[in-house]
Amino acid sequence: MINGLINRPALGNFPPHDWAQVLESGILRVAPKGLDQVFTAMAGSDANETAYKAAFMWRRQQERGGPAVEFTAEELSSCMDNASPGASQLSILSFKTAFHGRLFGSLSTTRSKPIHKVDIPAFDWPQATFPQLKYPLGEHVEENAAAEKAAIDEVEHLILNYRVPPCAVIVEPIQSEGGDNHASPAFFQALRAVTRKHGVLMIVDEVQTGVGATGKFWAHEHWDLAEPPDMVTFSKKAQTAGYYFGNPELRPNKPYRQFNTWMGDPARAVLFRAIIDEVERLGLVAAAARVGDYIFGRLEGLAAKYPGEFANLRGKGMGTFIAFDSPRRDEFLKRAKSLGLNVGGCGQSAVRLRPMLIFEEKHADIMLGIFEKIVSTWDK
Amino acid sequence: MINGLINRPALGNFPPHDWAQVLESGILRVAPKGLDQVFTAMAGSDANETAYKAAFMWRRQQERGGPAVEFTAEELSSCMDNASPGASQLSILSFKTAFHGRLFGSLSTTRSKPIHKVDIPAFDWPQATFPQLKYPLGEHVEENAAAEKAAIDEVEHLILNYRVPPCAVIVEPIQSEGGDNHASPAFFQALRAVTRKHGVLMIVDEVQTGVGATGKFWAHEHWDLAEPPDMVTFSKKAQTAGYYFGNPELRPNKPYRQFNTWMGDPARAVLFRAIIDEVERLGLVAAAARVGDYIFGRLEGLAAKYPGEFANLRGKGMGTFIAFDSPRRDEFLKRAKSLGLNVGGCGQSAVRLRPMLIFEEKHADIMLGIFEKIVSTWDK
Repeated sequence: MINGLINRPALGNFPPHDWAQVLESGILRVAPKGLDQVFTAMAGSDANETAYKAAFMWRRQQERGGPAVEFTAEELSSCMDNASPGASQLSILSFKTAFHGRLFGSLSTTRSKPIHKVDIPAFDWPQATFPQLKYPLGEHVEENAAAEKAAIDEVEHLILNYRVPPCAVIVEPIQSEGGDNHASPAFFQALRAVTRKHGVLMIVDEVQTGVGATGKFWAHEHWDLAEPPDMVTFSKKAQTAGYYFGNPELRPNKPYRQFNTWMGDPARAVLFRAIIDEVERLGLVAAAARVGDYIFGRLEGLAAKYPGEFANLRGKGMGTFIAFDSPRRDEFLKRAKSLGLNVGGCGQSAVRLRPMLIFEEKHADIMLGIFEKIVSTWDK
Repeated sequence: MINGLINRPALGNFPPHDWAQVLESGILRVAPKGLDQVFTAMAGSDANETAYKAAFMWRRQQERGGPAVEFTAEELSSCMDNASPGASQLSILSFKTAFHGRLFGSLSTTRSKPIHKVDIPAFDWPQATFPQLKYPLGEHVEENAAAEKAAIDEVEHLILNYRVPPCAVIVEPIQSEGGDNHASPAFFQALRAVTRKHGVLMIVDEVQTGVGATGKFWAHEHWDLAEPPDMVTFSKKAQTAGYYFGNPELRPNKPYRQFNTWMGDPARAVLFRAIIDEVERLGLVAAAARVGDYIFGRLEGLAAKYPGEFANLRGKGMGTFIAFDSPRRDEFLKRAKSLGLNVGGCGQSAVRLRPMLIFEEKHADIMLGIFEKIVSTWDK
């Protein structure tokens, strides 16, 4: 199944094309379990914002009584004035320290750093606390479980009480820009349960985590959810962007409700198909899992050898999606570059690893050697 | 000059590239007069929204006292809660029946049709009436001048009085999606004057009108403005998207304020450069002016021969950017398609011409023959 507009008879304005076949043999071949439809977009912000639009339309359609119920005259006139009831008084709930993009709707859900948001008007949308886990995880089991439960309770409270009611919750499998903040599968299972309980959609933002780096093609496969998320958004490594969905109710009920000139980029969808082929041919997802385990083990050794220098080491079992906190992070990154290693930071103090999928143990050895050189020669 | 981030020393994360040269030899070679800098984006909505972000930052920077003045602690903390003063309480003023895109900020300025807006939350931003000119222009000179003056007065009133103060006005040279609504150069000159008078930016949305179809490379060249607009946005025919600007104050004063993963698309910037080369080699802008005059003259003949069938013929002297109202528009379009002619509509009753730049008189003859066939055989 493919997105609503494409799957319908030709609209007349479009010449014959193989777009459906490009989607089926590429983007849809790697669709997350339970999600068999895709809406293509141009970039990560667009992917999230079109998903938000689908969520708002879905909720209002529910309230209205289904896809066949027509808009009221008042809805049609008030929306032209940006006023309710036509412009819905609904929100998207996101998490503190989340990053979901930089356009006006997506930026309203981004809560990573002030420099991303200051001066830009924003919607009055709610934010819940993302659990702040303590490491090593094995030593803080009860504390971390309590933090996750508190976060879920806060989500439920906001769903029930926030002055602009959320129709969807968006969450990253790993808060990337915000500092590589992880939560347990149990947290995400509970989030799926609480959103389902209250008829709120769950959107998983896999713009950073998607396409293999976590040792699964999609990071949310790690959660073993009983029911799939309602939408999964993608961009970056996919070269193209958009969102997957499974529920036919998330299709626009009329043409041109969700539409634009480009409707994604066929050339980039072909690129993504070729990337998928290569990922499969070379077994790169399994390789990311294997190499990630290797790196994590070696970093545990360094953390023990240099106390405090590789703090809060995280991402175990999550492929190469690994991070640690450095007490002098910016200097760490600078010295790494001066030693020929391009590595980045996220959040306030994290050094995050984002190697390409073709990164192997032999490359990891070079990286880890430079890491050790940095911390063993501080102040020298 | 090129966009702020690229023009600075390498940030370290970016490998060597010829991006600056691609921009200088392409996008910037056709920069509108007075605008020597460009910020690249992914699509028309993104182009407008990044321009809006630049406008908000610019205004707040002015209020703050310049680029060197730091944000206050209150701004930095409140913006994380989507609240003022960090999230600015400012707006973008647009015109009724305008179309500027479909993401949350751009859609808040789009006022074309309810189907584009219904159910989607929107900002409380103001809209002014776009002058509704009567045709033929020569027979309604005073009436049209009065309509344009009233529109400018309304803009000024909204700038001074709207509850969420506008920091920018966005306008299409020809309201395209909204029905091919034109206004005179005098109107746009007055708009430039009133925005300048009140320290409000003027953004010209050339997403539809740009790249030659009006017989000038940029449609706003028809206005002969004493001072250039502050920003000009582009997409569609350019294959790439973004906005031009001339004022260095519109550059972000800190890194990462206006930024994203893609920062435009180098491959599409190369495409645009090739398009520019071809437009120049074949003299396609002058050709659009010539062919447009030919079509307009022939349509005047048809309008006289078939009264009411080619009503409010408009776009004289604007290249092939021509439209007319049909009393049975949807049927007109349907019959055109059945006769092998793919032509579209806009607004409530307009048939709009949007031929490619390589459209010549010989193609126009086929189109006009089909037009005549349609209207001469109604009800037969």
